[in-house]
Amino acid sequence: MSNLIYGHHPVVEAINAGMPVEKVLFQQGLRGELEKEIRHLTKAHDIPLQVVPVEKLNKLVRGNHQGVVAWTALVAFRNLEDVLPAILERGETPLLLLLDGITDVRNFGAICRSAECAGVHAVVVPQSGSAPANEDAMKASAGALARIPLCRVRSMYSTVEWLQQSDVQVVATALSDRSKPIFEVDFTGPTAILLGPEGEGLAPKLIRMSDAVARIPQATDFDSYNVSVAAGIAVYEVLRQRGTTLGDDA
Amino acid sequence: MSNLIYGHHPVVEAINAGMPVEKVLFQQGLRGELEKEIRHLTKAHDIPLQVVPVEKLNKLVRGNHQGVVAWTALVAFRNLEDVLPAILERGETPLLLLLDGITDVRNFGAICRSAECAGVHAVVVPQSGSAPANEDAMKASAGALARIPLCRVRSMYSTVEWLQQSDVQVVATALSDRSKPIFEVDFTGPTAILLGPEGEGLAPKLIRMSDAVARIPQATDFDSYNVSVAAGIAVYEVLRQRGTTLGDDA
Repeated sequence: MSNLIYGHHPVVEAINAGMPVEKVLFQQGLRGELEKEIRHLTKAHDIPLQVVPVEKLNKLVRGNHQGVVAWTALVAFRNLEDVLPAILERGETPLLLLLDGITDVRNFGAICRSAECAGVHAVVVPQSGSAPANEDAMKASAGALARIPLCRVRSMYSTVEWLQQSDVQVVATALSDRSKPIFEVDFTGPTAILLGPEGEGLAPKLIRMSDAVARIPQATDFDSYNVSVAAGIAVYEVLRQRGTTLGDDA
Repeated sequence: MSNLIYGHHPVVEAINAGMPVEKVLFQQGLRGELEKEIRHLTKAHDIPLQVVPVEKLNKLVRGNHQGVVAWTALVAFRNLEDVLPAILERGETPLLLLLDGITDVRNFGAICRSAECAGVHAVVVPQSGSAPANEDAMKASAGALARIPLCRVRSMYSTVEWLQQSDVQVVATALSDRSKPIFEVDFTGPTAILLGPEGEGLAPKLIRMSDAVARIPQATDFDSYNVSVAAGIAVYEVLRQRGTTLGDDA
């Protein structure tokens, strides 16, 4: 589990100090200065705020939580608007992974591990509905989570639009009328690969917005690849097309 | 005691694959598509169905059972000497996975899942030092373990020799002097891909015996891909070279 911070001052201090706060839980029905301050701070720092019954806070914390509890992430979130220009300044071809609705901590960690191996420049997740960057994710990532830039965005839709305006093609991995085998998609230019959860898949609107839709070939109609395997295949295909020939011993 | 299978897909796949399911336990009060599917399947296969309180399922299973648990004798091992000729008789190009020293149950299950997606003809494991084909492996495989032929061999060395005598090339995935990028290895002919554990890797003798050694490209020196991701990339590369263009929606 991530680290918990509770109580008015500790939570406010943590946010003001720029600590990576995953989420703030606030007690239902609590009013006054504390509420105003927390609402203002979480909004200003793009931190998800969740109003919950006091019983939930009591279950989480033994001490006097004063109605506010925060989870801190193990890693600091980076700003995508800063990360992308830095890649270009280094003369590298951007490769990003956009994870929408990946809530399984182990899959999230495993994806970060493959991403770090493949030299992915950043992993982008939405503010809500994502797996927490906690100890379990860190373990599943074999430590990659501490190395790879992680960006949290308010809206995946706006992010896709912003990337496209920045000349980064967005490739959705999904089954749709438009999808073609992933090895027929050109990954030699700046690319962001969009992955969704295994069951429901990516939101149709995200698929429609994408510049290309890639499917990972199967030889049978069995279920589908695990999403972390699909992510690994996608980044491998990028490296193959870009002629990366280093190796690992897995 | 018999083995337990739990979760929607694993139970459905087990029944569909004709596994000897003794009994299915279903959660009281659970309605919807899952209930319909389980009722239909158990009736069609003459399997007793018992509706029980959720507490009973929770006692049986620690993981997320999704309201359905089945008792079964887990997979029967197949004989590689029977499996290979049958592939050739069907006019197909053999694709086998040889897993040496893969002891992690989840990795084993995840590899079987990718293998089934990719149409791998059989997964071969040595008699000792392998992950058990138990309910955790079944769950990690999303039910693939019930479908894919699993062969247990006494010695991996003899198996490699026998395959080579049967005109099946053996490709080790490893870092060695001989290794080349996996996309430079020709997978269009009959192939067995040899995978070892992440830490120590494959036994040097197995690497020496192999017809080719493939490395999976990395762009950084970070650790290595998870072995189930490496297996996914390897089978994807085979499908790519063989021109398989069906898709999944992972």
